[in-house]
Amino acid sequence: MLESWADGPTKSALVEFTERAAAAVAPEERVAVFDNDGTLWCEKPAYIQLDFLVRRLAEQAAADPSLASNQPYTAAAAGDLAWFGDAVTKHYNGDDSALKLLAGGVLSANATITTDEHAARVNAFFAEAKHPTLGRAYTACGYAPMVELLRYLESFGFTNYIVSGGGRDFMRPITTTMYGIPPERVIGSSVGLIFQNGELLTTAQPEFLNDGPIKPVRIWGRVGRRPLLAAGNSNGDIEMLQYATAGPGPSLALLVHHDDAEREFAYTAGAERALDLAETHGWAQASMRDEWRAVFSD
Amino acid sequence: MLESWADGPTKSALVEFTERAAAAVAPEERVAVFDNDGTLWCEKPAYIQLDFLVRRLAEQAAADPSLASNQPYTAAAAGDLAWFGDAVTKHYNGDDSALKLLAGGVLSANATITTDEHAARVNAFFAEAKHPTLGRAYTACGYAPMVELLRYLESFGFTNYIVSGGGRDFMRPITTTMYGIPPERVIGSSVGLIFQNGELLTTAQPEFLNDGPIKPVRIWGRVGRRPLLAAGNSNGDIEMLQYATAGPGPSLALLVHHDDAEREFAYTAGAERALDLAETHGWAQASMRDEWRAVFSD
Repeated sequence: MLESWADGPTKSALVEFTERAAAAVAPEERVAVFDNDGTLWCEKPAYIQLDFLVRRLAEQAAADPSLASNQPYTAAAAGDLAWFGDAVTKHYNGDDSALKLLAGGVLSANATITTDEHAARVNAFFAEAKHPTLGRAYTACGYAPMVELLRYLESFGFTNYIVSGGGRDFMRPITTTMYGIPPERVIGSSVGLIFQNGELLTTAQPEFLNDGPIKPVRIWGRVGRRPLLAAGNSNGDIEMLQYATAGPGPSLALLVHHDDAEREFAYTAGAERALDLAETHGWAQASMRDEWRAVFSD
Repeated sequence: MLESWADGPTKSALVEFTERAAAAVAPEERVAVFDNDGTLWCEKPAYIQLDFLVRRLAEQAAADPSLASNQPYTAAAAGDLAWFGDAVTKHYNGDDSALKLLAGGVLSANATITTDEHAARVNAFFAEAKHPTLGRAYTACGYAPMVELLRYLESFGFTNYIVSGGGRDFMRPITTTMYGIPPERVIGSSVGLIFQNGELLTTAQPEFLNDGPIKPVRIWGRVGRRPLLAAGNSNGDIEMLQYATAGPGPSLALLVHHDDAEREFAYTAGAERALDLAETHGWAQASMRDEWRAVFSD
């Protein structure tokens, strides 16, 4: 097990923590939580869910030409992904105009359908969509060493959860196959649902944005236990890592470093504070380049 | 198994459904959901959680005499439980003044403490509180036939959840012992939490009121599957029962009738619409008086 992990301090820390926790903590308390984007699968050059959303916006623009002259539909119809990145950059520079258009489009893109219909759209996307630069299906963009870690923890009685800023119902259709994590253990962002005639319908109202300090709140809400291990890769994971490591018993925080431009991507943007805190608190840090013998499984 | 159930149509329906579902449905889809108050344990003469709250309000009034001249603290300090019932009655008669005072007190009663401290308060309550008329500890107020049903379903590969209007974190400390249902499978009402210095703190802000049409929404949010069996006893369970029975495969809705004044309580208030719908749709109906050989386990 953990065969894609090179021998070194991070692999040793994972093994040592797991054995110690299994010896000291009751099985039902052995809970581990994993961010998804950038921790279990790729998040560059753009979130995989953004591809799903842009395709849907383009479909909406094609079906209703009156939409096509407005953003974000114009950009989606033209395949202008830079517009979406710019919307976020402008937001960080104090200009929310584009982000507001984007958010409205994103929230309504899959509104007023049943949860079954939503799952069917997600499945149709994953059946055909491919990563734009890695030349592999999105469903093959999971990190082999992290999937091995999930299995390794399970072999010591751990229960794993995904705790992601990504959409709960975007992830659920593929997490069992990709990660062995079933729908009831996927915690993510969501829109409100309404109950009508025996069915649940999606709305365009935001419910949870599962990021930052909301992650520990929702871990408690869903699990009712403090996790022993938390793994992430960005600033949005900091509080979840702090929550896991503030417990009284064995605990481990793991931060994945994207430092492998050759096999995946190299970037620290969005992870600056997390990287600083990892140094300060001695969190385990996985260098993709140096410590992952393989990134993907083939 | 099901030894406290008398032979009859309801027991037969439970057995027939369970065998059919186990034969037709994959194990991971075998999900059953149970209301708590009035379905798994007593809810008369008042919700058990109300006793927990009134004791806490009285404690707050004792600690801060300036509170004691205001409601709901005056009533709590005087042990005037009728005031709390009247607040609800007035609400149904269009006068929300008392209910608003009550709600404010309820929400702030256990605010600004950690989730661990909250669990300690709940455990202290259950360690000493007794049912006012049945002469047994609240933790012995679970219905034996329903606990047998939980075990019976599990023996056929079902996973059981509690889906209650009661407080999520009020139930969690005792559901494993009373029902064999762990914290991660307890869905209930909640206040918002905030993350601070590695801990989660309660607030006085309502988060979910888990009742009526919100129950199916939250079942999906937490489980990501439509349940096959739903059990309830009141109007607040209707949508959950409709959700379970609107699926394409085997399903069962079970309504518990409180018709046993001798061993428990006899009432239909708050269940009128549910009882009508049970007739219309042929939901299974458990008469406590006629079909439960025992109500409690001794």
